[in-house]
Amino acid sequence: MFFETVQTEGLAHLSYVVGRGSCAAVIDPRRDVDIYLELARAHGARIIHIFETHRNEDYVIGSTELAKKTGASIYHGHAFDFGYGEPVRHGDVFELDSLQLEVLETPGHTDESISIVLRDTDAGSSPLMVFTGDALFVGDVGRTDFYPDRPEEVADALYQSIHEVLLPLGDQVILCPAHGAGSVCGSGMADRNFSTLGYERAHNPKLQLSRDELVRQKVQEHHPKPPYFEKMEAVNAAGPETGREIPLPIPLDADAFAAAMEVGAWVVDVRSPEALSGALVPGSLGIPVGMLATYAGYFLPYDRDLLLVAETAEDRERAVRSLYRLGYDRVTGYLAKGLHAWSTSGRPYHTIPAVSVHELIERRERKEQGMLLDVRSAEEFESGHWPGSTNVPMADLLERLEDVPVGTPITTFCGSGQRAVVAATILLRHGHDEVGVCLGSMAACKAAGCPIESDR
Amino acid sequence: MFFETVQTEGLAHLSYVVGRGSCAAVIDPRRDVDIYLELARAHGARIIHIFETHRNEDYVIGSTELAKKTGASIYHGHAFDFGYGEPVRHGDVFELDSLQLEVLETPGHTDESISIVLRDTDAGSSPLMVFTGDALFVGDVGRTDFYPDRPEEVADALYQSIHEVLLPLGDQVILCPAHGAGSVCGSGMADRNFSTLGYERAHNPKLQLSRDELVRQKVQEHHPKPPYFEKMEAVNAAGPETGREIPLPIPLDADAFAAAMEVGAWVVDVRSPEALSGALVPGSLGIPVGMLATYAGYFLPYDRDLLLVAETAEDRERAVRSLYRLGYDRVTGYLAKGLHAWSTSGRPYHTIPAVSVHELIERRERKEQGMLLDVRSAEEFESGHWPGSTNVPMADLLERLEDVPVGTPITTFCGSGQRAVVAATILLRHGHDEVGVCLGSMAACKAAGCPIESDR
Amino acid sequence: MFFETVQTEGLAHLSYVVGRGSCAAVIDPRRDVDIYLELARAHGARIIHIFETHRNEDYVIGSTELAKKTGASIYHGHAFDFGYGEPVRHGDVFELDSLQLEVLETPGHTDESISIVLRDTDAGSSPLMVFTGDALFVGDVGRTDFYPDRPEEVADALYQSIHEVLLPLGDQVILCPAHGAGSVCGSGMADRNFSTLGYERAHNPKLQLSRDELVRQKVQEHHPKPPYFEKMEAVNAAGPETGREIPLPIPLDADAFAAAMEVGAWVVDVRSPEALSGALVPGSLGIPVGMLATYAGYFLPYDRDLLLVAETAEDRERAVRSLYRLGYDRVTGYLAKGLHAWSTSGRPYHTIPAVSVHELIERRERKEQGMLLDVRSAEEFESGHWPGSTNVPMADLLERLEDVPVGTPITTFCGSGQRAVVAATILLRHGHDEVGVCLGSMAACKAAGCPIESDR
Amino acid sequence: MFFETVQTEGLAHLSYVVGRGSCAAVIDPRRDVDIYLELARAHGARIIHIFETHRNEDYVIGSTELAKKTGASIYHGHAFDFGYGEPVRHGDVFELDSLQLEVLETPGHTDESISIVLRDTDAGSSPLMVFTGDALFVGDVGRTDFYPDRPEEVADALYQSIHEVLLPLGDQVILCPAHGAGSVCGSGMADRNFSTLGYERAHNPKLQLSRDELVRQKVQEHHPKPPYFEKMEAVNAAGPETGREIPLPIPLDADAFAAAMEVGAWVVDVRSPEALSGALVPGSLGIPVGMLATYAGYFLPYDRDLLLVAETAEDRERAVRSLYRLGYDRVTGYLAKGLHAWSTSGRPYHTIPAVSVHELIERRERKEQGMLLDVRSAEEFESGHWPGSTNVPMADLLERLEDVPVGTPITTFCGSGQRAVVAATILLRHGHDEVGVCLGSMAACKAAGCPIESDR
Repeated sequence: MFFETVQTEGLAHLSYVVGRGSCAAVIDPRRDVDIYLELARAHGARIIHIFETHRNEDYVIGSTELAKKTGASIYHGHAFDFGYGEPVRHGDVFELDSLQLEVLETPGHTDESISIVLRDTDAGSSPLMVFTGDALFVGDVGRTDFYPDRPEEVADALYQSIHEVLLPLGDQVILCPAHGAGSVCGSGMADRNFSTLGYERAHNPKLQLSRDELVRQKVQEHHPKPPYFEKMEAVNAAGPETGREIPLPIPLDADAFAAAMEVGAWVVDVRSPEALSGALVPGSLGIPVGMLATYAGYFLPYDRDLLLVAETAEDRERAVRSLYRLGYDRVTGYLAKGLHAWSTSGRPYHTIPAVSVHELIERRERKEQGMLLDVRSAEEFESGHWPGSTNVPMADLLERLEDVPVGTPITTFCGSGQRAVVAATILLRHGHDEVGVCLGSMAACKAAGCPIESDR
Repeated sequence: MFFETVQTEGLAHLSYVVGRGSCAAVIDPRRDVDIYLELARAHGARIIHIFETHRNEDYVIGSTELAKKTGASIYHGHAFDFGYGEPVRHGDVFELDSLQLEVLETPGHTDESISIVLRDTDAGSSPLMVFTGDALFVGDVGRTDFYPDRPEEVADALYQSIHEVLLPLGDQVILCPAHGAGSVCGSGMADRNFSTLGYERAHNPKLQLSRDELVRQKVQEHHPKPPYFEKMEAVNAAGPETGREIPLPIPLDADAFAAAMEVGAWVVDVRSPEALSGALVPGSLGIPVGMLATYAGYFLPYDRDLLLVAETAEDRERAVRSLYRLGYDRVTGYLAKGLHAWSTSGRPYHTIPAVSVHELIERRERKEQGMLLDVRSAEEFESGHWPGSTNVPMADLLERLEDVPVGTPITTFCGSGQRAVVAATILLRHGHDEVGVCLGSMAACKAAGCPIESDR
Repeated sequence: MFFETVQTEGLAHLSYVVGRGSCAAVIDPRRDVDIYLELARAHGARIIHIFETHRNEDYVIGSTELAKKTGASIYHGHAFDFGYGEPVRHGDVFELDSLQLEVLETPGHTDESISIVLRDTDAGSSPLMVFTGDALFVGDVGRTDFYPDRPEEVADALYQSIHEVLLPLGDQVILCPAHGAGSVCGSGMADRNFSTLGYERAHNPKLQLSRDELVRQKVQEHHPKPPYFEKMEAVNAAGPETGREIPLPIPLDADAFAAAMEVGAWVVDVRSPEALSGALVPGSLGIPVGMLATYAGYFLPYDRDLLLVAETAEDRERAVRSLYRLGYDRVTGYLAKGLHAWSTSGRPYHTIPAVSVHELIERRERKEQGMLLDVRSAEEFESGHWPGSTNVPMADLLERLEDVPVGTPITTFCGSGQRAVVAATILLRHGHDEVGVCLGSMAACKAAGCPIESDR
Repeated sequence: MFFETVQTEGLAHLSYVVGRGSCAAVIDPRRDVDIYLELARAHGARIIHIFETHRNEDYVIGSTELAKKTGASIYHGHAFDFGYGEPVRHGDVFELDSLQLEVLETPGHTDESISIVLRDTDAGSSPLMVFTGDALFVGDVGRTDFYPDRPEEVADALYQSIHEVLLPLGDQVILCPAHGAGSVCGSGMADRNFSTLGYERAHNPKLQLSRDELVRQKVQEHHPKPPYFEKMEAVNAAGPETGREIPLPIPLDADAFAAAMEVGAWVVDVRSPEALSGALVPGSLGIPVGMLATYAGYFLPYDRDLLLVAETAEDRERAVRSLYRLGYDRVTGYLAKGLHAWSTSGRPYHTIPAVSVHELIERRERKEQGMLLDVRSAEEFESGHWPGSTNVPMADLLERLEDVPVGTPITTFCGSGQRAVVAATILLRHGHDEVGVCLGSMAACKAAGCPIESDR
């Protein structure tokens, strides 16, 4: 038997290849499916089954492409009308040599959510692993806010799926969820991808709650719902178009880059917060490459060409792949030789001066603080913030731009400086001209013992 | 938290890298330690702890080399007098950021055997994983035949270690043993490296036995004890010399190759059974590359230069690495351009004609079978064999060569033809001149419905 | 400036990527164009020009695919009616940053053959490199046998192209031809890919001949013209269909493999000559992977599924790629776990006993030689052969099968044993049942001092 | 025959592997010799000869390490007393299968400089390639300033070596020098590594000069002579100690990093100019990774531990390798998670605000320019500079720090902003507290049409 976990950075997405002999199955493949073909090849196996544990909102699924390339069948829950694949029902069993994959209906996150139980018939009848999709995570459970008209019902369904369907499989079962720490699909996940039902039963905070407590909590939760989710849902319901390869942006010198901007292309600068702070092309949206999966869907349009600025070819390709996974296929060019090409072309550039917490304290003492714009979530802000700062969460920034007066010096602030630098580039794009960023932000405050104000 | 399993082919050895933040530990490192450095680097971590779960008999350990390269400390059980590292005791705890590694004494396989329990203090107090060394495997338990003067005592100790120390950790604990399927350290291991204590409690055949039953079985077991084990034990007790790199054999044309043979070098031909059957250099020992870890230690001396014949550079390097892991450091040359260089040099070569089971049946009918030499173990032979065949197990072949009369046509036979081809090359080396091999062997017999005789 | 040579094994094909700044050109791309995209990416450049120096007969060109993926333009000589790209004329100049590429018409090999001269305008006006396609090679000149109705005319054109167009560029010019040693497009090429016009002027044997001598020689030359050339010409004239990816054959166990054979699939066994000699699936065509580019086009049909037997995944993928370059897109499956899977399935297999030249001598003395079938070319045979052997060149084998009597024991023979083993598998396919192969063949004869008969 | 060029970034060093059959030679190996072993392996060859064309001043040679690992002999010119290897003389010939390598004495750059001519005896007697070391480059000739007491004599020797020894080999000879564009060993080299003696004869500007003109020019040239040259000369004369592997720095969190700084370690920040501008650890020396080979030797001590700050693991490893090539073996740690770890630790950081040329113009109009410090060479400065700027070349910066008044706001300036940012970090290290950098610098000035003052 072979078993491989494929982690997708940024999305914190986990997919799996499992097989024995010359047969393999893939659970929840991402859009760039080359990795699954490669793993199947390494094990000398052919992918024959593909499972979608639920309709995904946060990325373009790879099932249709993978099915086209391998001839495998796609299976998903029956309680949703997918435009592709075959619906399956509780108790359906699929074979992989002497392994068995059994479908369990585990609604809650979505109505059609399924889990897949793996048994090794060579060894015994007990379940060995379970692929739980977005029902049960390591340290958390799935979000249940996709049916705003019946929040209690779906939260209750999730409780039942976990406590009456999954946990009874036994403490010995290895847990294989669809997301790990950092995903937008849950907030309390552990930083490890290794657990068992028994371990979760004992230590997952959400599994310590009574039915009522869990429902109450779930109903009150707030999860980010970036605008691109809607597109993902539509694409994944219909089944993504196959044969669309990862874009191959072309190198552009500063002139060609500027010309492409002139005719409407957007610039996405994926360099580090420090490099963005140092200098950037006016008008760029700055999102460090590791944050693209989380923030591209808030700020980038699907109907424009996208141009990249990156430090290295590797980062550029990570960016292209990250964007591709979210359905952005119009990444047409990049700035050859990076920002250096721009600065030596004699064109103006913007800077976002970095402001340490020590400098913030001095400015505050000098009464020259300007506006300190904290872009963390309301929950984070409430739990402790810089005295006198203003909270406009990243997710709301575009709609609440009028709350950030043009003309005032602004310093952006967040948990560590990363979201803050993204926000700073957005402000610059929208006409602000004196924007600094507190690299370090709240983490530095705490470490340095700065005064923190709390609403609690 | 990160966790990586390093599988070593042939040895079926499993070692582990586990860590969080910038700290990592390695459990049971193999001799070629580059992989651990690479994994630590990939996770941005520094290796600070190295654990030896027991003194190893089947390969050269990598702890001393890894400690030298990283500055990490080496820990091992106190019930043996190692020439390096620090002894640890039941209950000792080591930290890796917020992970905890606790030592459990689990004697049985060897007196000083320890297991290491991993806890994630961020999540809770329950054990999450356990590294069991050669105490408990997936589907089997460790061998207990290293103390021939007190077999019951150590088998009993193993029972106690498993039932009173390991299993009480809880069903939810992920099992991380030191070997997987195919190891000489156990015979009933499953083909997968994923299990939990709960799954093993339910399905591991050895865990279904009572204390007395287990002891009785263990006392009667026969395990291979290749001659090189003795050297490994000595080397690993003292601590392997550091700084000895993987050998870099040089290309030799047929003349230079023959000249090196003249002055005493041994030829190891690691090509496939079919290619060995086709043609080989007279005097070679043929061991397909994937079988080296298991058979090199029976047949190869440590005090001679070794020359390789391989199909590809990749196979050559796999062979060099496999031999290096067993302590063979004198791999000095290889036949450039492979067997082709030899055959075109005008030198004679041997062949080992392949004989299918269909041909065997015909020969038998014609009474021209010659000697059918079955080199499987006595247990395998007894459970079913070709009528009239002679059993000389591989492990005994060198001592029992006089049982194989020179002058008689011989066809070697085994489970599938792989051991048989190794045996055929040994017979050719020792003066036999009419040796064929039954590619397919018992597997083909069963599939083709040939008559099989059983002693049971 | 960057400059990269892409060598294609087997075809002995050379293609080139050259560029400066963010612009690159590719000369004579092969079908699997990923390597050009990769090289362009590594240099931060975009491919904007693609040159076809002549219509190719020996492989599927990659220009159309590469143009589709990059948006580059394709250029070729105007004296042929291609179904794609743009015709260019003597003196046309293309720019790559400060590099210049000038077209020279150099007919002879084909009417529309062009060469491309590279100048570096940063340094001076002299030519620096020339891409000569199949006009001028290192140590040889192009073949001129594609216009059987006007052989003198085209040979004369080649003389003129070389002596009046290419050599006058100057001794200092670096030579970049479309083929290296081992190509079917010439027979006298040196084993190195590095030369200059001056070096060739002094040492290329064909450049030492007078106009009349060269024409006379060229008219008398015989070059292999495998049946697939016709298909290649048609495909390359029209422009290969784009978007057809490299096939991804699926693993088949012995049963599925046999079933696919039943319904008409051909088996291509790409293992080494020794392994083919050891055992092979009855009915297979054996062509060691490195020989596929040369011999697949003689023996393999385009209208059948092809199944592979290979030793390793790497060899399998080399085989798939080699076949893909010749337009074989129906490589649908492979024998999972290789020949071992077949022999253990209990099915019969064939062997091709290896016969050394020493054994041949003994057999001859015993008058038991059977038929010694030498499959080298007539020229090779005439220059020296085993006494009493029969010559049927590989290229004619299928048409002359009746010259090889069924029922007689046959030993195949060639230069070193490699072609001989291919021929042996063909004989087995066509009903011969006692076929051996002389591994070593003529090379071994010469090295061992065997008697050789010559017709000269 | 095989031939591979190994380019070493930063050093702009070129070394070569050439061979035929199973023999190979390496010319001028760098310190990290793994690449040569890898290339030899890929060609199935053994390295038997190593040539040092001259004693190198700019990097630690790899000959002793490579000889130890392969058993090859090292050869060098006899006119210097090396502590290792064998001296060779004009006309000595070494064989590699059917290739010949002939030694030519070509003094000038150094007294003992040799060139190596390659002939292919299979093809003819003419030279095919020549390895010229630092005698003749593509577009330039070697520097001759290492014998300050006899400048004319060595310049004259160089003229004679080129015109009377090298060029007479013939226009057809491919040129293989020891350096390419960007090296500190010459200033006029072309950006390509492909040329021939004929091409250079026609277009190399230095080869158009008469004997007297060349001598006159050479005597007046100024080349950088970084302080580390002296150490390199001593190390390379004696023969570098073998067995010293590339350092493996360990990850340090901000606390451990700061602690190491406390006890004397130096911080080298190898991030991009923009990222350095954004934020840096106080006290760091900033040298972007691609500039390390050129500038580390000016500013870094050999007797201190070095700590790295890098954006990615790849950059960190490039930095370690670059430093290792210059003999820096004490790279002991790096800042885990990069600058982010520092800023979130609550520690202060420095910034170097980027100032565009447009901002410079405004400041000048506002009379707020402060000191504009141009760190280009005197020649560059004289050929055109910003009005009112002060020139202190990078090479002299440490000695002339008193020319840069503490307390004055300073903006550093150079050709494009890269050297300027290095200089800025040096000023910050030495107590300046208001230092900006003109990203773009002179290149931007020219592109944007800013006023430029020239001393010519």
